[in-house]
Amino acid sequence: MHEALAALRLVDHHCHGVTTGPLDPSGFESLLTEGAAWPGISPFDTPAGVAVRRHCAPVLDLPRHASPDAYLARRADLGPDEVNRRFLAAAGVDALCVDTGYAPLPLTSPHELARAAGAAAFEVVRLESVAESVARAGVEPDEYTAAFRRAAEDAVRAPGVVAVKSVAAYRTGFALDPARPTRAEVTEAARRWLAAGGRLDDPVLVRELLWTAVDLGLPLQLHTGFGDGDLRLAGADPALLTDWLRLIAGTIPVLLLHCWPYQRQAAYLAAVFEQVYLDVGLTLHHVGPARARAVLEEALEITPFRKLLYSSDAYGLAEFHLLGAVSFRRGLGALLQDRVDADELSPDDALRLVRWTGSGNARRLYGLPSAPVPCRD
Amino acid sequence: MHEALAALRLVDHHCHGVTTGPLDPSGFESLLTEGAAWPGISPFDTPAGVAVRRHCAPVLDLPRHASPDAYLARRADLGPDEVNRRFLAAAGVDALCVDTGYAPLPLTSPHELARAAGAAAFEVVRLESVAESVARAGVEPDEYTAAFRRAAEDAVRAPGVVAVKSVAAYRTGFALDPARPTRAEVTEAARRWLAAGGRLDDPVLVRELLWTAVDLGLPLQLHTGFGDGDLRLAGADPALLTDWLRLIAGTIPVLLLHCWPYQRQAAYLAAVFEQVYLDVGLTLHHVGPARARAVLEEALEITPFRKLLYSSDAYGLAEFHLLGAVSFRRGLGALLQDRVDADELSPDDALRLVRWTGSGNARRLYGLPSAPVPCRD
Amino acid sequence: MHEALAALRLVDHHCHGVTTGPLDPSGFESLLTEGAAWPGISPFDTPAGVAVRRHCAPVLDLPRHASPDAYLARRADLGPDEVNRRFLAAAGVDALCVDTGYAPLPLTSPHELARAAGAAAFEVVRLESVAESVARAGVEPDEYTAAFRRAAEDAVRAPGVVAVKSVAAYRTGFALDPARPTRAEVTEAARRWLAAGGRLDDPVLVRELLWTAVDLGLPLQLHTGFGDGDLRLAGADPALLTDWLRLIAGTIPVLLLHCWPYQRQAAYLAAVFEQVYLDVGLTLHHVGPARARAVLEEALEITPFRKLLYSSDAYGLAEFHLLGAVSFRRGLGALLQDRVDADELSPDDALRLVRWTGSGNARRLYGLPSAPVPCRD
Repeated sequence: MHEALAALRLVDHHCHGVTTGPLDPSGFESLLTEGAAWPGISPFDTPAGVAVRRHCAPVLDLPRHASPDAYLARRADLGPDEVNRRFLAAAGVDALCVDTGYAPLPLTSPHELARAAGAAAFEVVRLESVAESVARAGVEPDEYTAAFRRAAEDAVRAPGVVAVKSVAAYRTGFALDPARPTRAEVTEAARRWLAAGGRLDDPVLVRELLWTAVDLGLPLQLHTGFGDGDLRLAGADPALLTDWLRLIAGTIPVLLLHCWPYQRQAAYLAAVFEQVYLDVGLTLHHVGPARARAVLEEALEITPFRKLLYSSDAYGLAEFHLLGAVSFRRGLGALLQDRVDADELSPDDALRLVRWTGSGNARRLYGLPSAPVPCRD
Repeated sequence: MHEALAALRLVDHHCHGVTTGPLDPSGFESLLTEGAAWPGISPFDTPAGVAVRRHCAPVLDLPRHASPDAYLARRADLGPDEVNRRFLAAAGVDALCVDTGYAPLPLTSPHELARAAGAAAFEVVRLESVAESVARAGVEPDEYTAAFRRAAEDAVRAPGVVAVKSVAAYRTGFALDPARPTRAEVTEAARRWLAAGGRLDDPVLVRELLWTAVDLGLPLQLHTGFGDGDLRLAGADPALLTDWLRLIAGTIPVLLLHCWPYQRQAAYLAAVFEQVYLDVGLTLHHVGPARARAVLEEALEITPFRKLLYSSDAYGLAEFHLLGAVSFRRGLGALLQDRVDADELSPDDALRLVRWTGSGNARRLYGLPSAPVPCRD
Repeated sequence: MHEALAALRLVDHHCHGVTTGPLDPSGFESLLTEGAAWPGISPFDTPAGVAVRRHCAPVLDLPRHASPDAYLARRADLGPDEVNRRFLAAAGVDALCVDTGYAPLPLTSPHELARAAGAAAFEVVRLESVAESVARAGVEPDEYTAAFRRAAEDAVRAPGVVAVKSVAAYRTGFALDPARPTRAEVTEAARRWLAAGGRLDDPVLVRELLWTAVDLGLPLQLHTGFGDGDLRLAGADPALLTDWLRLIAGTIPVLLLHCWPYQRQAAYLAAVFEQVYLDVGLTLHHVGPARARAVLEEALEITPFRKLLYSSDAYGLAEFHLLGAVSFRRGLGALLQDRVDADELSPDDALRLVRWTGSGNARRLYGLPSAPVPCRD
């Protein structure tokens, strides 16, 4: 199983670009954690930090478990292009679906990311960013719905776009009225929001955004479960989406991203709703290979094998593109090998599960070509 | 431990009948999943499907991991009576408590099920079905309470009835006012429900049903945790029952069924409320032997050993009667053997835990005779 | 790793005193469980009961897995002083932070506990007890805020006090308005509470208490997750504290105690909020060494290594001081040894993690001296 996983070229169905410029130690450390770099508490002293020193140091020609100082010095010596190229090449990925809607730092474009990885890149359009662009460009409240829809339709028409994404989990959480808001409700909410400015976090407008995703017809990626400190975790439990998922049955695929610590809840949804899929991206590089298996075990307890996808959710650090892939390969490999050894799973079924979750499910769902193709920049 | 569990005749304290007629492939597949049979996603490609091919195929004289086609063909060849007899006999069960309140398909009666299993059968009365029968028969709103109570008393007076059950988790969830509703509230709610028709899902009437269960005095089985897509999972967290459990302290035993993914929450309730018990039925055949141990480990973390029961929650497919038993035996056996090997548990204590959870706790709680008895049809 | 942990003197950052008088069998059994001693269900037939017979019996010169009767007889023979001395000495603890605010039974003072353990003792002031003392002493509603604050300031000024604690989880749960209540709101709530009497469970006054803790400036210990039957478990999910934690960023450290079954939620908070720390005390002795590793694995999945602390949360029985320590040492030792063996963690890093979580993090956070000091009685 480990060999099969090592040989498999993955499809990373949800990730971000990596920083293009040099990173000083504090810049690196702040990207290493979902928290922040706090005095006296090194972000290297975390499961993710340990995993970077163990699995990423050798890619930079350092011994395993190199010290943070040695790691940062060597990283600076090699420079960002070489560092990014090494980690992305080592990830063994054939296709990347890149969320381009969040870039407080200068990040690689999908094309640059793909070139470094030797992969094809596709784009995921973040709908909140589209809505906020519409607001910034200026729009009357009663024109907001139509303007947002047109802007979203334009955005997804660009070459290489395969999905849309929402960060509703961050903005309102999922304990929302599942019904499509009325035209009047949206106008009233837009009036308030456009007057106040700021990011899109009005519950009516978030509902409008989710229903617009249904109309767009592309697969919808939803952040669920943990993330940075800007989140209310309990509101990001995907089980809260149940009523809405029931209402949209028969329409678009919905991809539940990350999910931890609600991976079992996500698995339940994937088991009972045809359109629901899940991954445990983000989690994989934060828990590292030491616990990736445990999280995958829970995610797979009742999940149909066609419903689990691989993602790294790497953001900023090229290391996370590699760590996600290593965690997935080691975690799933150990899980499957033990089941085959115990004769609970046949080797053929195990290999099928590897191909599907590592690559086939994403290719099928997003309609990706089976051979790499160029992407727009 | 494995030998002790293999030799133990189980009491399955919550299960359903199995289909009596032949099943075509799509009929079989739709019973294999809590979801539905979706195009392009075979219900065999799930943990339950893998477990059926691994553990059930040999019972039909097929090799382990037989293909779905071979499995379905052989199943059709043998015919439903022979298939049912083989799986039920192989389950090694001495007594079955059968929920007879849900039968959209023609199912075996408790007596037929017991005969196939070589076991005694007992009956569990589903209170929502009783209430809905009362409504269908016609009743005035202000007579509803009395009529429902009379009908429930009649139903539980039938020979072989040992418990009642509620599917409140499906109808309203557990985030209910815990207090017994007033007579006036019930009449008003009954007026609305009887006028509107349909299944019982009014919160006031569900509360009335739960309190009627208290008056009936029999153990109450409650569906908790996952099930099919008709559920809101977050509302089926048994921890939401706390206030009600506190109010009914000193009355009836309450059996929390399935519980997954809230087995730790259920264990907490069983640890602090005298009248609370739990099982991880349903879960056992859905996760299969490969993960039954992990779920049982969590369920047993703090649970008093007198509080865990075995159930299959098998419905429709005789395979699930076997799979539940295999998962329980393998999962608990591995868990206990490792603890004995590590000297964390004495062999005598481990054997006691086997006897209690596999059989003794249910016999004690429901007052089952220790030797099999005939049951009504 | 096991040797390193065996050699390490722990800091138990949250515990209680132990009973000073003799315990009859039912007195012992009622302290052995978070539930109660129920007819026909021995508190020895639980994971904690098994762990006592396995790990505590030898300390009383009995064979491992001694019977409950033999255990209780030997315990009575030795008498409370000798029993307490043996278990506390065997725990291998250098410093104890003792919650003195809950003592329905006569318990050892911090000084007595420390003497038995050969350790230094520090005190944790329970704020609800302070508030209830203020109410009992008599105060006008519009003077309540000031009187409570003065009393709390006096209490924490006593020598050896290193932290305050709240049991808001028991009183209202965490689904509270996170804002500091206004003076008028507090006065109105105090008027109601002082007139009605009883324990402090008014949501406005609980919020006032939490904000007073912020003003006091000492680390705040919060009971989270499971406890006895007086709790609503779902309301004790620490994730519900998110908004409040965000508001108090930059002020006091907040220690999430116990956490089970929400240890992953607590880990998330510790990963994203600088001031948040966690332990899995209480859980450790209830699940015993057989499952302590599994709970620690979840608690450490994403937790920065500076954020996990050791506590026993032992109360009443000296056995729990030992069991907490044994469970922590065995659980963490096995976890770390396997990671070192798999080369996922370097031995040096593993040893650092042992020192930090077992002792260093608590010393740093509470400013404890590194050598034992006497404490007030």
